[in-house]
Amino acid sequence: MALVVQKFGGTSVGNIERIQHVASRVVETLDAGHRVVVCVSAMSGETNALVELATQAAGDDEPEPREFDALVSTGEQKTIALLSMAIHRLGRRARSFTGAQMGMLTDSAHTRARILSIDTDRLRKVLDAGIICVIAGFQGVDEDDNITTLGRGGSDTSAVAVACALEADVCEIYTDVDGVYTADPRIVSGARKLSRIAFDEMLELSSAGAKVLQIRSVKFAKRYGVPIHVRSSFEPDEGTWVVPEEDVMERLVVSGVTCNVNEAKIHVKKVPDQPGIAAQLFTPLGESNIVVDMIVQNLSSEGTTDMTFTVPRSDHRRALELARKVGGELGAESVEGDEDVAKVSIVGLGMKDHAGVATKMFSVFAAEGINIQLISTSEIKISVVIEEKYAELAVRALHAAFVEEGAAAPSFE
Amino acid sequence: MALVVQKFGGTSVGNIERIQHVASRVVETLDAGHRVVVCVSAMSGETNALVELATQAAGDDEPEPREFDALVSTGEQKTIALLSMAIHRLGRRARSFTGAQMGMLTDSAHTRARILSIDTDRLRKVLDAGIICVIAGFQGVDEDDNITTLGRGGSDTSAVAVACALEADVCEIYTDVDGVYTADPRIVSGARKLSRIAFDEMLELSSAGAKVLQIRSVKFAKRYGVPIHVRSSFEPDEGTWVVPEEDVMERLVVSGVTCNVNEAKIHVKKVPDQPGIAAQLFTPLGESNIVVDMIVQNLSSEGTTDMTFTVPRSDHRRALELARKVGGELGAESVEGDEDVAKVSIVGLGMKDHAGVATKMFSVFAAEGINIQLISTSEIKISVVIEEKYAELAVRALHAAFVEEGAAAPSFE
Repeated sequence: MALVVQKFGGTSVGNIERIQHVASRVVETLDAGHRVVVCVSAMSGETNALVELATQAAGDDEPEPREFDALVSTGEQKTIALLSMAIHRLGRRARSFTGAQMGMLTDSAHTRARILSIDTDRLRKVLDAGIICVIAGFQGVDEDDNITTLGRGGSDTSAVAVACALEADVCEIYTDVDGVYTADPRIVSGARKLSRIAFDEMLELSSAGAKVLQIRSVKFAKRYGVPIHVRSSFEPDEGTWVVPEEDVMERLVVSGVTCNVNEAKIHVKKVPDQPGIAAQLFTPLGESNIVVDMIVQNLSSEGTTDMTFTVPRSDHRRALELARKVGGELGAESVEGDEDVAKVSIVGLGMKDHAGVATKMFSVFAAEGINIQLISTSEIKISVVIEEKYAELAVRALHAAFVEEGAAAPSFE
Repeated sequence: MALVVQKFGGTSVGNIERIQHVASRVVETLDAGHRVVVCVSAMSGETNALVELATQAAGDDEPEPREFDALVSTGEQKTIALLSMAIHRLGRRARSFTGAQMGMLTDSAHTRARILSIDTDRLRKVLDAGIICVIAGFQGVDEDDNITTLGRGGSDTSAVAVACALEADVCEIYTDVDGVYTADPRIVSGARKLSRIAFDEMLELSSAGAKVLQIRSVKFAKRYGVPIHVRSSFEPDEGTWVVPEEDVMERLVVSGVTCNVNEAKIHVKKVPDQPGIAAQLFTPLGESNIVVDMIVQNLSSEGTTDMTFTVPRSDHRRALELARKVGGELGAESVEGDEDVAKVSIVGLGMKDHAGVATKMFSVFAAEGINIQLISTSEIKISVVIEEKYAELAVRALHAAFVEEGAAAPSFE
């Protein structure tokens, strides 16, 4: 008998028929002898409708964050109640839990709260009685009982966090794709589904632009060693298991090729090279909640240096304004922004064991006549920024060179 | 500086424009120097939409009551968040409270829970800081943190209960009528608005069919001596104050004439007259949650007696079935049901001081040629059951005889 946490997103519970379908899948798992916790999002469209109401009520102001959370959290509360009813209809017992009811304690950062702890006693008692726990994703409470929400992708995070707290055997993430692919199948026809992938690889893929799992949820799963099983809401087949590194048999040199076209590049030219420059440049960005992704600084020449970094495209204008202000104070020659960029990355555990991966990657770009603007590497990832129009070509070429059958592995050291 | 509780129903918060209108009224009260608690219902239509979803999810079964409450309580939660945002937009501070957040403790009778206590500390602290408390009507939690709802008219009850717990100076009930009338103005053109009415009169009027206030809320207000002010959501004028008896100056013989066409009559004929008959008859009705209103039993003749009672028309079929079953066991000659009835009542504190009110009432019916089927009296109310088609005629005749200008008061003892 295993303890299984299953998470279904908004599309999977988008109407009553789909909720009934989810109820059947959950009951199947119960009837196979397992204890089951189901974590659900708001029905698709519901959150947007609530946000629209909030916008109308608040007028030109931002909606007050505490009240915004109180409002949007009703979306998941609807789903948990309806799913519990649908399970009852199938003759099984279920009990719904809001964030408050399951003791999902968070900090007080409304709309982007972080989980502090989960009181699992109540869930355990219900599970031990053979009852299915149906929990609301995305929401929690702070220590003053204020309702909070976890921000983007919060339901994945809720599910994995509960799985970790309950020491579940697996956290199943049901979604509209059937697993994690070596590349986006809409771009690369030869992309194939991975049966297993390591937490670190998944983290790098997520941060490189793969949308299948939120980074926060993978970090949780890694820290507590709870395997995640990404699979289809609609098909019964196994999907992709995200597991500790030692459980990945096949250490692929490159297990994924990703592309992110949602970033913009900012180039600060010829700023006097002295200690503290980077801090002065990036502090105001951090204070404005702008997340800087890649940062590249070249060696200085003639007492000045160039600094280039990328930010989410939606923050580009604000970031450029801030960078120009600071750049001016620092005496930079110019500060320019550029949205016409794509970040293309290759990720793989096997890079640790193989030399020459970067060289091979750059050769692929050279052969296609694609100019590389920025390079940034980690132990198991290499990312480059190129002109956006070459993005799909680059992904296809890298996938052919590193992943597809006949791709020659770089020399093994 | 007074402490004012204001309650707005579903129509008053039916869309964002109306919520903004409510926000203005609330802020006016705050700016006049008062502390304000606002209690709101779900936006009109919202609860019905949720009930429809529940019906779909549960299929042929009744929706599981615990989950039904979790579902429908989201309606009020939406309103409190939106109203709080609208108040923020006006530059004032507001904080929303679900039933759980304000410590509205109830028993565990889902869908018709009773209030046990309210933890007012949290509300007081917020009020003392000059912040408007926006509370969800209709909902509470039981001691295990399960969400409960109070059943029909629950928002009135929530508002009055909070007003009592906070020892508020007044509980204002904003509604789509502008006060309590001596009769339904749609039936009686000469009906007039009462400026004051006693709790007991309001209780009798409500139980006799007046829909302006729920009985439970009036009982609360009476017990704790908190005045209720029934007034219009749309007009600024004073409405009707519901107050302790000693605060009513003008003790009208008849302050209200009401009519209830939502009952059915059940007649158990010639049942052997022996102790325990009534208990045997009404116990199964009570166990089925059928509320019996009038009960009339005549003296027995030849060892048998007739028993007649009324029930809500919506429960008539179930009640008749049960009564026939028990009637058969008891050896009754027949058990017949009749939906073609109306209950017409006159209510007034002054009846305590005046004799001849009943006689005069019966004379009015005689003059109009209306046959009286059942009579039931209390200290300040006389109700009769008549054929439904005479209902409006009876109300108009009684109003003319007892309330309108020139109506002769019965002799004063």
